[in-house]
Amino acid sequence: MTGFSLADRLRAGETVPTGWCGMASPLVAELIAREGYPCVTLDQQHGLYDMPTTFAGIAAIRAGGAAAVVRIPQGGFSVASRVLDAGAEGIIAPMINTIEDAKAFVAATKFPPIGARSWGPSRASQLTGVHKGDYLKAANDAVLTFAMIETRTAIKNVDAILAMPGIDAAFVGPSDLSITLTDGRTLDPHSKEVDAAIDTIIAAAQKAGKIAGAYTATPERALELEQRGFRFFAIASDTAFLQAGASAALKKFK
Amino acid sequence: MTGFSLADRLRAGETVPTGWCGMASPLVAELIAREGYPCVTLDQQHGLYDMPTTFAGIAAIRAGGAAAVVRIPQGGFSVASRVLDAGAEGIIAPMINTIEDAKAFVAATKFPPIGARSWGPSRASQLTGVHKGDYLKAANDAVLTFAMIETRTAIKNVDAILAMPGIDAAFVGPSDLSITLTDGRTLDPHSKEVDAAIDTIIAAAQKAGKIAGAYTATPERALELEQRGFRFFAIASDTAFLQAGASAALKKFK
Amino acid sequence: MTGFSLADRLRAGETVPTGWCGMASPLVAELIAREGYPCVTLDQQHGLYDMPTTFAGIAAIRAGGAAAVVRIPQGGFSVASRVLDAGAEGIIAPMINTIEDAKAFVAATKFPPIGARSWGPSRASQLTGVHKGDYLKAANDAVLTFAMIETRTAIKNVDAILAMPGIDAAFVGPSDLSITLTDGRTLDPHSKEVDAAIDTIIAAAQKAGKIAGAYTATPERALELEQRGFRFFAIASDTAFLQAGASAALKKFK
Amino acid sequence: MTGFSLADRLRAGETVPTGWCGMASPLVAELIAREGYPCVTLDQQHGLYDMPTTFAGIAAIRAGGAAAVVRIPQGGFSVASRVLDAGAEGIIAPMINTIEDAKAFVAATKFPPIGARSWGPSRASQLTGVHKGDYLKAANDAVLTFAMIETRTAIKNVDAILAMPGIDAAFVGPSDLSITLTDGRTLDPHSKEVDAAIDTIIAAAQKAGKIAGAYTATPERALELEQRGFRFFAIASDTAFLQAGASAALKKFK
Amino acid sequence: MTGFSLADRLRAGETVPTGWCGMASPLVAELIAREGYPCVTLDQQHGLYDMPTTFAGIAAIRAGGAAAVVRIPQGGFSVASRVLDAGAEGIIAPMINTIEDAKAFVAATKFPPIGARSWGPSRASQLTGVHKGDYLKAANDAVLTFAMIETRTAIKNVDAILAMPGIDAAFVGPSDLSITLTDGRTLDPHSKEVDAAIDTIIAAAQKAGKIAGAYTATPERALELEQRGFRFFAIASDTAFLQAGASAALKKFK
Amino acid sequence: MTGFSLADRLRAGETVPTGWCGMASPLVAELIAREGYPCVTLDQQHGLYDMPTTFAGIAAIRAGGAAAVVRIPQGGFSVASRVLDAGAEGIIAPMINTIEDAKAFVAATKFPPIGARSWGPSRASQLTGVHKGDYLKAANDAVLTFAMIETRTAIKNVDAILAMPGIDAAFVGPSDLSITLTDGRTLDPHSKEVDAAIDTIIAAAQKAGKIAGAYTATPERALELEQRGFRFFAIASDTAFLQAGASAALKKFK
Repeated sequence: MTGFSLADRLRAGETVPTGWCGMASPLVAELIAREGYPCVTLDQQHGLYDMPTTFAGIAAIRAGGAAAVVRIPQGGFSVASRVLDAGAEGIIAPMINTIEDAKAFVAATKFPPIGARSWGPSRASQLTGVHKGDYLKAANDAVLTFAMIETRTAIKNVDAILAMPGIDAAFVGPSDLSITLTDGRTLDPHSKEVDAAIDTIIAAAQKAGKIAGAYTATPERALELEQRGFRFFAIASDTAFLQAGASAALKKFK
Repeated sequence: MTGFSLADRLRAGETVPTGWCGMASPLVAELIAREGYPCVTLDQQHGLYDMPTTFAGIAAIRAGGAAAVVRIPQGGFSVASRVLDAGAEGIIAPMINTIEDAKAFVAATKFPPIGARSWGPSRASQLTGVHKGDYLKAANDAVLTFAMIETRTAIKNVDAILAMPGIDAAFVGPSDLSITLTDGRTLDPHSKEVDAAIDTIIAAAQKAGKIAGAYTATPERALELEQRGFRFFAIASDTAFLQAGASAALKKFK
Repeated sequence: MTGFSLADRLRAGETVPTGWCGMASPLVAELIAREGYPCVTLDQQHGLYDMPTTFAGIAAIRAGGAAAVVRIPQGGFSVASRVLDAGAEGIIAPMINTIEDAKAFVAATKFPPIGARSWGPSRASQLTGVHKGDYLKAANDAVLTFAMIETRTAIKNVDAILAMPGIDAAFVGPSDLSITLTDGRTLDPHSKEVDAAIDTIIAAAQKAGKIAGAYTATPERALELEQRGFRFFAIASDTAFLQAGASAALKKFK
Repeated sequence: MTGFSLADRLRAGETVPTGWCGMASPLVAELIAREGYPCVTLDQQHGLYDMPTTFAGIAAIRAGGAAAVVRIPQGGFSVASRVLDAGAEGIIAPMINTIEDAKAFVAATKFPPIGARSWGPSRASQLTGVHKGDYLKAANDAVLTFAMIETRTAIKNVDAILAMPGIDAAFVGPSDLSITLTDGRTLDPHSKEVDAAIDTIIAAAQKAGKIAGAYTATPERALELEQRGFRFFAIASDTAFLQAGASAALKKFK
Repeated sequence: MTGFSLADRLRAGETVPTGWCGMASPLVAELIAREGYPCVTLDQQHGLYDMPTTFAGIAAIRAGGAAAVVRIPQGGFSVASRVLDAGAEGIIAPMINTIEDAKAFVAATKFPPIGARSWGPSRASQLTGVHKGDYLKAANDAVLTFAMIETRTAIKNVDAILAMPGIDAAFVGPSDLSITLTDGRTLDPHSKEVDAAIDTIIAAAQKAGKIAGAYTATPERALELEQRGFRFFAIASDTAFLQAGASAALKKFK
Repeated sequence: MTGFSLADRLRAGETVPTGWCGMASPLVAELIAREGYPCVTLDQQHGLYDMPTTFAGIAAIRAGGAAAVVRIPQGGFSVASRVLDAGAEGIIAPMINTIEDAKAFVAATKFPPIGARSWGPSRASQLTGVHKGDYLKAANDAVLTFAMIETRTAIKNVDAILAMPGIDAAFVGPSDLSITLTDGRTLDPHSKEVDAAIDTIIAAAQKAGKIAGAYTATPERALELEQRGFRFFAIASDTAFLQAGASAALKKFK
């Protein structure tokens, strides 16, 4: 695989499912890519991925024929530029609640004049086959920023966040939304409050001409959100695949 | 979990399914154990496990509440004693074709007077909670040797192999059986030739009063072999769980 | 071991010694746990622990029967939420000098409404056996925040820091105290200035109804501080155990 | 090798070339040191180095007879103090654009009264052979801070940044300079704009009595900058050595 | 890259240079592949490669567009089948001195009826895209065995070794030849004795219709041996590239 | 540290204690070396060391100022030559019971004309500073082979084993001796049978003019054996140092 693929697909209006990996095993990420996923996401926020496994994972995902996205730790904007240097095609940043958060996210991930990303994508250049001068020209468009909208504050600021140049997409975190919207009382990603917030987010994304994505526990939920305008979905995780498979085999046996 | 559990269960006539792990991720092995498997096997022959991941994997499996078994590389009898020192409760040895192979297997895995295993199970002692003197007394019974019967030669020698003191079980390798019984022409673990060999093996095991186990691609096949007297089964692998889950989720989505 | 144990013990007034590990070897941490320590702390600030070894270390400590605490790097609040997701029962944060520092610490480690911790404790849930909904209810109480008081500024703000909801404990860093209180002139964790600061800290903790802990080089010092009201102690480190043992053996031999 | 060497050489006016390593292989770093380099730099910003490889790399570089410097990720001041604890003799910090950036850099890397570095250099003490009390006295002089000047804003503030106590050196990042000075249009580290900026930087360094260093792709460029007053140079990278050697051998063969 | 490439090239009479890697860094191996090498060899005998780095290295080399070969440790025939399962296209076995050595090598690397390789190439199948049934049919031809001829005994037996079905190639080890031919007195891979042995080896290979390869320190030596009929060459190593580049840059600078 | 040191000391009649490491942490091994041990041994037989940790450990031990010895797995003669290539100064081989075992050990570890070790010590050359031609001349003397005498059979053959050129030393394994001499009934390294065997071994070593070493759990036992003529002692292990230190600190605290 050469070049970038994720931004092109999403900008063309395609729906893109992503594998979601937290187990810090590049081989697991590669196998998911090889099953035909156009994108695989490595989770550094709540998953066990860290820099070395992420660097190896990005290469493994590309070798498996997919685009790599990384969810960075909260506030980990410095991590964002490092994983872009390593060949990621997108960054999901948690808890982009304010204009300031969004600015910091853009600063770390877009080259001037949009942001202040520092130059050094030699590994990205090796993996994509995009030569260095071309990379500078292409990167601001080809590398996507997903701002996670997952708190009451973020909902309030969602229009301004998504309107900001350099923010390419919203990404819904339904579990945190359910917690913050109930002040910590309830964990229910399918609650009415979450659903209303999702409406607000998709409206803001469409108004700003930006992509909308979401973490969804199941393909069914993803299909429902696709109807409402979302295009990028985490449809299930490595842990879930493994646990479900192991559990089902054992049950058949018993 | 303290003490040993695998030998007790199998000697009591229980059927024991084992998870089968080749992906060299101790966390994957642990998650399978946590789904309720009484045993998880780490594969060093055709899987990607090596010593450090096996050492970590054995501890992870025990932390997940299961017994750990290791399939060693062909001829890797020295590896066998190392993984027993690290807390494994069973060893599956590939290609035990002759009396000499079986003797070398026993020598590496059983203490005198049965074999010549060298003393040093300090990690096993930590993980099982069995103190060192007790470990010496318990180990020859508590740690199981599975001789893989998977060639024409092994079938010929199966009675003598299984009669040998220190060999606790037969373990059928149906893919290699199908290849060797057809002189390399066919890979079909469910062929007539393989089925006939399986009859020979179970008969030999029952005659010798030894346990019979098999690698089975599916729970269905395992249930069939259970009817025929087998008690220890590799019912599916980490790779298979992951690929099947990832593939099914993608299909639902498309 | 299932569930949480550290908060219960300390809230019950028990004295809890913790092993202190900087060598980035999960096995070392596990062995210390197995010697009977109720708690083992992994040091990411001045020790060599990083995320992968910390993730593995937390699991190893729990397998060894103890609670895991992590000292995060200075300002590493994002790290704090990640290691809590991985199953830590406590976080020691260096250089909590101001109200702002304390707020950021609480935000990262407590769920709403106290803080703004993001949801995702799947590894913690596996390791503790506490199901996800229960984890949300339990975590704000069961997971402890230790604010390190180790500068002149922190001493000035100690009452306000410890009064803050979500800050569960003070933790004294005597070496840094001695340096900052002498403007860099002296390293003496047992100096008069440090002793006076310790008095201020314990008074503030007792006034706020919070736990008091300290790094102590020796069990003797820990016993002295226990008299003065402290309950959580780092009594010695992996490096110290190893160096002292190696040195003593060599001396006997010479 | 015992003690520190980098600060002494540079303060004595010597020119010091540094190897530049991004491949996250401590052995590669060690081999470069063994070729006679007085200094080897590990790159965590655009290279693949992370904490464990950096910790191992610092030890390997010292074993190879050289001083170790680390370029930290942007804003990674907490990382700076950790790698100093691990034995680094210098820190290169990217994007020191403002007085606030410079203050944060000094705070993390110099002990009081200059900064607020936290105490804990036990690994540094082991590797350098400098005992702990002596380390406290020596470190503020012996450990060098290199502030990267690589944006329009930084050029504007360069006098104030370099005048700050605790900032020991400027380090030019010519690629980022070329991008920021052309608002993202051009990548040309040898452009006129960059050259003019370099003049400004060297003038500021000389005025402040501080060291000047630069990343230079080639020994030739380094020699030119040496004429202009620079003394510390990254003259080529591990990746470049490897690619050039492999390419040349293949060409000879074809 | 899909499928196999090395055997096809060599059987078509092409000359194939191979990179030679001992530094146990898969990234180094990948970079050499990306410079255009059709083949990269990982050295487990005298290099620092072990199983996990070899598994990762094979995947990295394929991702870089080249075929992977592994030199196994002396007598490591069990390792041979494991690295073939992991996707290697060739095995170089040291010290194939006798018919028995050659038989053991073939047994481990060729499926029945030629050898006794055990079935399990799932990783090879993923990496090459060759489905499992096809792999069984293709492997005995597509995977190459290189017998190292590097002792007096081996020279004596070279005709019989190379005549054996399943041995695909001779590979000259000139350093060991020089030592064994002088009974340990001299290390000179270009000595007269070595040259005479090389004549014997190439004659035997041509008589048996087998490929001839050699370790050559330099492209110049490789070109000379190509004239004499050799087709597979290790023309330089990762360590040599790195040391030469680092040394040359430093010299220019001084 | 440059050159070799272990053989010189032992041949000069010095008593040499060795640290004994099984925890697979190179840093642990290095710390023990830094406490003043002239030698540190890495245990691959019953410890958790494997190749990558052994390679790193050897370098770390040398950096710490000591000579590195490796105990290889039983029958792991191929491992022996690899760790010598990596810079070890001695190899302890378990279960050298027969002349054939001893021959295989010598073959792997001594260059012609004594043995058949294959050439490739580039890492050893880097670490010791001994250039390659000199290494060939020096190695057979400078690198020591310790044959473990630990079974009834070995006792019977001990004179012939120790008389063999290329076998430099006997090394007593008292635990296995106690087990084999009682046919598996007793584990008592201080039994009368073991003591008598020790007398036989020291007599054989002195007759053959070879060094005698032993694993001893305590410095006290080592001093006793020194009286009887032994000169090389494993006086305690990393695990023991750590457990004893942790346990003692906890006791003081309670």
